[in-house]
Amino acid sequence: MAIAVILGSGVMGSALAVPLADNGHDVRLVGTHLDRAIIDAIRATGVHPGLNRELPASVRAYQLEELEGVIEDAEIVLSGVNSVGVEWAAERLAPLLRPGQLVITIAKGVRADEIGDLRTLPEVLAEPVPADVRERVGWAAIIGPSIAGEVAARRDSCVVFCGRDQSVVDRLAAAFRTDWYHVWTTLDFVGGEICAAAKNCYALGIGFAEGQLERGGEAAGPDRAHNYEAALFAQSAVEIRQWASLLGGDPDTASWLPGVGDLYVTSTGGRNVRAGNLLGAGLSFIEAAERLGNPTLEGASAITVFGDALGKLTDRGVVAEDDFPLMRHLYEVVGLQRPLNIPWTRFFGGEPTGRVASA
Amino acid sequence: MAIAVILGSGVMGSALAVPLADNGHDVRLVGTHLDRAIIDAIRATGVHPGLNRELPASVRAYQLEELEGVIEDAEIVLSGVNSVGVEWAAERLAPLLRPGQLVITIAKGVRADEIGDLRTLPEVLAEPVPADVRERVGWAAIIGPSIAGEVAARRDSCVVFCGRDQSVVDRLAAAFRTDWYHVWTTLDFVGGEICAAAKNCYALGIGFAEGQLERGGEAAGPDRAHNYEAALFAQSAVEIRQWASLLGGDPDTASWLPGVGDLYVTSTGGRNVRAGNLLGAGLSFIEAAERLGNPTLEGASAITVFGDALGKLTDRGVVAEDDFPLMRHLYEVVGLQRPLNIPWTRFFGGEPTGRVASA
Repeated sequence: MAIAVILGSGVMGSALAVPLADNGHDVRLVGTHLDRAIIDAIRATGVHPGLNRELPASVRAYQLEELEGVIEDAEIVLSGVNSVGVEWAAERLAPLLRPGQLVITIAKGVRADEIGDLRTLPEVLAEPVPADVRERVGWAAIIGPSIAGEVAARRDSCVVFCGRDQSVVDRLAAAFRTDWYHVWTTLDFVGGEICAAAKNCYALGIGFAEGQLERGGEAAGPDRAHNYEAALFAQSAVEIRQWASLLGGDPDTASWLPGVGDLYVTSTGGRNVRAGNLLGAGLSFIEAAERLGNPTLEGASAITVFGDALGKLTDRGVVAEDDFPLMRHLYEVVGLQRPLNIPWTRFFGGEPTGRVASA
Repeated sequence: MAIAVILGSGVMGSALAVPLADNGHDVRLVGTHLDRAIIDAIRATGVHPGLNRELPASVRAYQLEELEGVIEDAEIVLSGVNSVGVEWAAERLAPLLRPGQLVITIAKGVRADEIGDLRTLPEVLAEPVPADVRERVGWAAIIGPSIAGEVAARRDSCVVFCGRDQSVVDRLAAAFRTDWYHVWTTLDFVGGEICAAAKNCYALGIGFAEGQLERGGEAAGPDRAHNYEAALFAQSAVEIRQWASLLGGDPDTASWLPGVGDLYVTSTGGRNVRAGNLLGAGLSFIEAAERLGNPTLEGASAITVFGDALGKLTDRGVVAEDDFPLMRHLYEVVGLQRPLNIPWTRFFGGEPTGRVASA
């Protein structure tokens, strides 16, 4: 039995308490400063209000002030904050982590420096940790298709734990793995993480299709725009492979759970896809975000990072101008407020130009 | 301007008259013996009853008896029958084709011989054509995500024309390409065709997810089984790459429009997915097919071909026993009437077995 601390009691962090508790581990779920009401509710009722489901009785919930007291003897530390909170979590965890602990993260996003070089979130999380501790902590991340509510409901889910050290990901996988929470591992840490970040961007784009139907007054008709979605899905799959390669990862990481699997599940719904719907219907990104109540849109945030970095990487000759046409256009629409106009002919290396028409 | 004959006036064949007609070509839509009522309706009203949409006025519709008269001076012959009708179409076309004609097919399926070797449908179509003509006809096929109703509605669609001769696929692509019907080309004829056949099988499997929810009494709840679907999608993507390799094609053909793109669109609905739903809900394949009125289920048919061939190929040592676990199980369920029990741990090369639990 291991002691596992989860920092962040949002839906995903909390859902991951379920396989850990099912395996008999001592699970300590610690809320952030934004999670006070969630922790209070769990303590009072056992029910997580976001998941709308009872957590296993063995899971104990703590407020942030209690973190220091419960993390010291933990073997596993799960950073359950989303991509917006990673720097915050890094500052909280840095003075508390101890050599030998295993740290696993779920945030999906990316950061860029001023010349466009990209950094994955586990790197951001590790940054403020003192070097001697950092080197003796086992770092890992969870990637692959995983909707929190379905994990909490113990529905079959297949995920991948990525890291740099096989024994680290093996130990973590063994702690989480159940009959319904299926865990594979990969040492392509950077490739896996960049897949996770990029797919949020592309899922937003797939949302354009239904919005475009609405704009064309065809939303009520029997025919959808699945061909449009599928073409964006395929171009997304191609570009995710290229992102993995660009960062020195394995492009094939994009061709199973971490890439096309996660892109598939993310495209089925959620706020990012709804933002895409509104953009497809003709709203500007600012209008779309307002319409949704200005929520955290991880895909949109990542688009601005990837898109801005792409400009710089192109200027530096690191990527070719013809590469990543879809991400470039997502950035034009989301980051630069330009009208939506999918560059179909630039997809898949460029559509051949021959056309024989008598018109 | 080219003369194009389309044999088979089902929804897909007929939809492809739209880009051809938009480009000003002389389009002759010829019904099969099963299409008499469709042809009568188009002649009387201009509306295709299956598409529920008016075809371009320049498209002329013919009954099967008129085929010989209209095909002789055609530059392009499109075989618009589905996979069930390919042998029939081959017999019809064999005595009528002439050297120099371009023949393009849309059927998605596969055939196997008695030792399990697989044959693509363009090969089946070409078989009865006299050798001297066969060698001087340009053979090609349309692959990639393409729902007929959306093509007929002139919605953006991205497809791939595959063949063995670049000038053949280029000439065909140039005849069909419009501002909304986007056409790429590939010379991976066998890889492209096997992607097209295999994705119908896997899309049926993705339908299991919703059925399983229903069976578990959870269909009305807020949480779906998208993680389950996404894991099947990812394993499908992996196996489609392997099918392409096994037949001597390029695995990367599976990683864009012909593979993951087409799998995505096929998974959004249709009879195959509905059959999968019913299997997921616990019906046997015979019961599910009956419930649907015993329609043509191209995915189910292809599963029986692939699955039976897999057994023989495994016996011969051509494929390893651990390969294609999902297709093997689809065959067990659809072909052998065995209960549904997804072999999650055999996916992605096998789930590592470590598990630390105190339970």
